[in-house]
Amino acid sequence: MGGIHRGAAPHIAEDGSFAASTSKLPVLQYFPCRGRAEPIRLVLSYVRQPWFETPPASVRDIYLIMHKEFDGYPFRQLPRFIDEVHGDVDLVQSGAILRHLGKKYDLYGKDIIQAGRVDMVLEAVSELRAKLREVVVVRQLEGSAVQQYIDTVMAPAEKLKVSSMQGPGLASLEYLLAKTRFSTAGWLVGEGPSLADFVVFDLVDLHLAQGELAEPLRNRFPALQAHHSRVAELQVGGIWVGAVGCFKDANKALCLATAMPLNAVL
Amino acid sequence: MGGIHRGAAPHIAEDGSFAASTSKLPVLQYFPCRGRAEPIRLVLSYVRQPWFETPPASVRDIYLIMHKEFDGYPFRQLPRFIDEVHGDVDLVQSGAILRHLGKKYDLYGKDIIQAGRVDMVLEAVSELRAKLREVVVVRQLEGSAVQQYIDTVMAPAEKLKVSSMQGPGLASLEYLLAKTRFSTAGWLVGEGPSLADFVVFDLVDLHLAQGELAEPLRNRFPALQAHHSRVAELQVGGIWVGAVGCFKDANKALCLATAMPLNAVL
Repeated sequence: MGGIHRGAAPHIAEDGSFAASTSKLPVLQYFPCRGRAEPIRLVLSYVRQPWFETPPASVRDIYLIMHKEFDGYPFRQLPRFIDEVHGDVDLVQSGAILRHLGKKYDLYGKDIIQAGRVDMVLEAVSELRAKLREVVVVRQLEGSAVQQYIDTVMAPAEKLKVSSMQGPGLASLEYLLAKTRFSTAGWLVGEGPSLADFVVFDLVDLHLAQGELAEPLRNRFPALQAHHSRVAELQVGGIWVGAVGCFKDANKALCLATAMPLNAVL
Repeated sequence: MGGIHRGAAPHIAEDGSFAASTSKLPVLQYFPCRGRAEPIRLVLSYVRQPWFETPPASVRDIYLIMHKEFDGYPFRQLPRFIDEVHGDVDLVQSGAILRHLGKKYDLYGKDIIQAGRVDMVLEAVSELRAKLREVVVVRQLEGSAVQQYIDTVMAPAEKLKVSSMQGPGLASLEYLLAKTRFSTAGWLVGEGPSLADFVVFDLVDLHLAQGELAEPLRNRFPALQAHHSRVAELQVGGIWVGAVGCFKDANKALCLATAMPLNAVL
């Protein structure tokens, strides 16, 4: 939990046994690691929306009940996000939470055409994340699994095109950026950052954080790497209030929001 | 391809080698089976939007190029949906296509609160579909895999609550309906049908179509079964124009739209 998350104690107390709401802030319940919550944290930081992150001790309590308390956890999972004070927005499923934030903070494209493209990228990243999870979590970065991943999911475009692997590879995202398919401004879709940029940034960042995957990413996907730098340099002002730490300084670069531990990355 | 899809020949010609657009209708490119296109077809039928379904011969041609032509198939997949004539809406990823139709035809909840709930259900069904795919496609309905599926994904609520399986089971969806969690009108979310109802209907229908899975579904999930009947009775007027068949009669019940073969169901 080091780095910039070390700092002042949380200044908002829990309200209720599982911190399902606070007096003033939206609540994000998740394990104290990046995982599926990280793109949500990135978005909240970018839009300068402070949020309450449920402390690890409470998350432990939640973990004990989340498989059986359908009321708050109908799909038996975290993250859970409760917007506003005792609000009607009480969501699970990271894709649903992200889309909610995308609508609320105007990060979902400027019209129905761009929104469809943002959704395309969200869905593709979801598939790519499942492929990464397979090699990191299920196969535990075992040598042959890593090599197969590098040869297929991370295949350069010309190799991906003749691969029998189903679905997208990282070259699919590289293509969208390099060919300025949906944006000429250096983002995935449209004239500014959208949900698509935050999920792609997080996916690329996960590769850069895994020793064996970092080098092929840098060597093969220059557009993804440039995009990663562009997103990392966005100015953010998120105030994250919770037991894992606290960052309050406005104008930090966005990359700082990803200083969470990598365990359970997916 | 029997049943009600047998009928008059398509009355809209292809325009261009891969039927990426027609003179008047949106185009749906997919294999001639239910699969990931079926919820899209159900929605188009329900809103009485005629569409052009690319003929199987053309789909064969598409299959030969879709792994390498990133321009139309950036993620190397079908379905692909092109809305209107040479429109800017040219989408892959069934989740993106469905959400586009949800916005266009007002099937996405009445406000941001309901929209978040619709997204929750879409994402959960996506996970459940992956679990069903594992047992049907990967494990080929092998006996022990089917039994495990019935004992976990199809576990009744009280068993699911003590199961170590991650994520949702069918009891999660049963709970939303039985407890009228997001709708008191018999739908998943809100006062009328939404995208959520069509994807849940399709998921339940896939279970009812698999011998071994039909009985536990009927025995254990009465609310899901009642919901399936409610959706099946919706009046539809979709005109589906393509080589697989054609149904033109308005006021057919929606279940007719699912008369496609089940192979490659997922």
